[in-house]
Amino acid sequence: MKWLNGFVRDEIKGLQSYEVPDITCRVKLDAHENPYSLPGFVQEKIEQACSWFAFNRYPDPNAHILRKNLSIKLSVSPDMIMMGNGSDELILYLLLCFGPKRVIFPLPTFAMYDILARVTLSTAIGIPLDDGFEIDEEKIIDEAQKEPSIIFLSYPNNPTGNCFSRKRIERIISQTDALVVLDEAYYEFSQETFLPLVYECERIVVLRTFSKAFGLAGLRVGYMIAQPQVINEVRKVKLPYNLNAFSQVAASLSIENAPLFLPIVQGIMDEQKRIADALGTICNIKVYPSKANFILFKIAENICAKDVFNSLINEGILIRYLGDVPGLNNCLRVTIGTHEENNEFLQAIEKIMGKEEEGRGRK
Amino acid sequence: MKWLNGFVRDEIKGLQSYEVPDITCRVKLDAHENPYSLPGFVQEKIEQACSWFAFNRYPDPNAHILRKNLSIKLSVSPDMIMMGNGSDELILYLLLCFGPKRVIFPLPTFAMYDILARVTLSTAIGIPLDDGFEIDEEKIIDEAQKEPSIIFLSYPNNPTGNCFSRKRIERIISQTDALVVLDEAYYEFSQETFLPLVYECERIVVLRTFSKAFGLAGLRVGYMIAQPQVINEVRKVKLPYNLNAFSQVAASLSIENAPLFLPIVQGIMDEQKRIADALGTICNIKVYPSKANFILFKIAENICAKDVFNSLINEGILIRYLGDVPGLNNCLRVTIGTHEENNEFLQAIEKIMGKEEEGRGRK
Repeated sequence: MKWLNGFVRDEIKGLQSYEVPDITCRVKLDAHENPYSLPGFVQEKIEQACSWFAFNRYPDPNAHILRKNLSIKLSVSPDMIMMGNGSDELILYLLLCFGPKRVIFPLPTFAMYDILARVTLSTAIGIPLDDGFEIDEEKIIDEAQKEPSIIFLSYPNNPTGNCFSRKRIERIISQTDALVVLDEAYYEFSQETFLPLVYECERIVVLRTFSKAFGLAGLRVGYMIAQPQVINEVRKVKLPYNLNAFSQVAASLSIENAPLFLPIVQGIMDEQKRIADALGTICNIKVYPSKANFILFKIAENICAKDVFNSLINEGILIRYLGDVPGLNNCLRVTIGTHEENNEFLQAIEKIMGKEEEGRGRK
Repeated sequence: MKWLNGFVRDEIKGLQSYEVPDITCRVKLDAHENPYSLPGFVQEKIEQACSWFAFNRYPDPNAHILRKNLSIKLSVSPDMIMMGNGSDELILYLLLCFGPKRVIFPLPTFAMYDILARVTLSTAIGIPLDDGFEIDEEKIIDEAQKEPSIIFLSYPNNPTGNCFSRKRIERIISQTDALVVLDEAYYEFSQETFLPLVYECERIVVLRTFSKAFGLAGLRVGYMIAQPQVINEVRKVKLPYNLNAFSQVAASLSIENAPLFLPIVQGIMDEQKRIADALGTICNIKVYPSKANFILFKIAENICAKDVFNSLINEGILIRYLGDVPGLNNCLRVTIGTHEENNEFLQAIEKIMGKEEEGRGRK
């Protein structure tokens, strides 16, 4: 132990591993997953692929077929696309390639920007969002002007659900020399994107994923879109066979059949609106507007959100407790499930909040 | 372009990405792949898994079932095992967790130690092997004693095929304070391992993979065995969902049915011996002894190995040209294929070498 203690650098010693709580519930609404199985046709094609698939051969390191299919769908050239084992890996690659630098991101946001900045010896700088969850673009610009920086913006932002002001982001891009990474993991839900700007500015990188709208979270497929010379640099830090061959096939089949996913995405967003509205009518709950497949909501201060979270678990429903995140005091986040799952969630939380109210009434 | 040039650090600018040559041949003997498809029973189980598999759910970040199955097979505790998206990823994690440090490895060896050391800001120190491809343990100890170091030893070594002297490696372990990583990617072929030493010394890490003997190169599954406190540190730099769920299922089914792979491994090593013997009888070829599923051989100086390599491609056979690697002048490497593929290779190289000999006779 003495050896190990001296051998690990302090930055790592102080780091908490990103732990996913190991709670099993009947209804799982905690992880932004698509609640539906794949469209039948895609599922069938993937199952068929399993019988001709060469498990024993290394994957195509450049995922040519998948990138070509994506390039058609996105109307960008294939040399502007790099695939990752989830976008997490692409965030790591960007930091390995362009770091160590100042890494700037709003707070609260997706935890991996901070963790991976520290892992890769960058200086992590979190800039708190304002009360409306909007970015403080002045402070971000200020920090980014001091030294070469990488700015991560989750768009829409996880876990708050809103898209930051476009104007503010454009100001950040134009008034700094930073690499600006727009993490559009929820793009298919929000329909808002900075993709066209990638052509205009080599400092913009867009991240997307198959984990949410395309329902392939289990297979880990993310991608990054940037100008070819940027992709070329990042390729130098890429593990040669980073995206496994089976995921390449499945993602390729999904993007080829992208229209089959449209009704699924539409259905999720219809449900999102329904749940947001219903939550909004429950006493002591404040709902934040969301452009993604999840909703952040705040429980009134006089009721403990952690208790509500635990009561939901007792009903077999897992959502996410965020009350320990700075800026999200007493907040919970629910991922949109199937119609039935959402009904279960609504009934349970109505019951729980009613009891809490009643309990307080009696005191 | 000017911005990019100033934004990327020099170390990355000078780096070559690890490119896999994009040559398609009928007979593929270049990448240490297992030439056989999976045992029928395992293949069937994996195909069945495809129908119940929840593509839309994130993988188990800690791969509990797979690690449990591995722990039974290896007789080590599950908390001594960490899974990787191929062992490449685990090499990167070790360097991210314990680097930047001096990273020492023999030359020639697996290219990723060098590349990933540079990517992670470590100092890469290659120590040439001697003429018999044995490590220079004095020099390695010397370098490792200067400052805290990480030593990578491929065992057996890729691309030379030999296992380094056990005594020399043990001296390196006992006379330095370095972290010693034994990359046993070809263990199932060599049957030689340092695994028992992991219990005795927290500075030893063993890497293994499902890509070779287990024929799952396409699914990218590697693992690392080390003392729990070492694993705990490395977990801090691990991407939460690094191993996709489908690969977890397939690797788990493979390790559960490990005995079914034994005749495959035995068959490959029988073929390895046959090809080594046959190559040895061909004029102007020197064969190096191998404990892995590939053979390194040298073409006599008066014949150009690159020409032999290209002539083989013309016959539809892809092997690996290594003549541009320092220390491997005029060398080629062939991966063991199926019996038929090996026959094709032997016939083709006999013909090519005969022609070369004849050509020289005429001059």
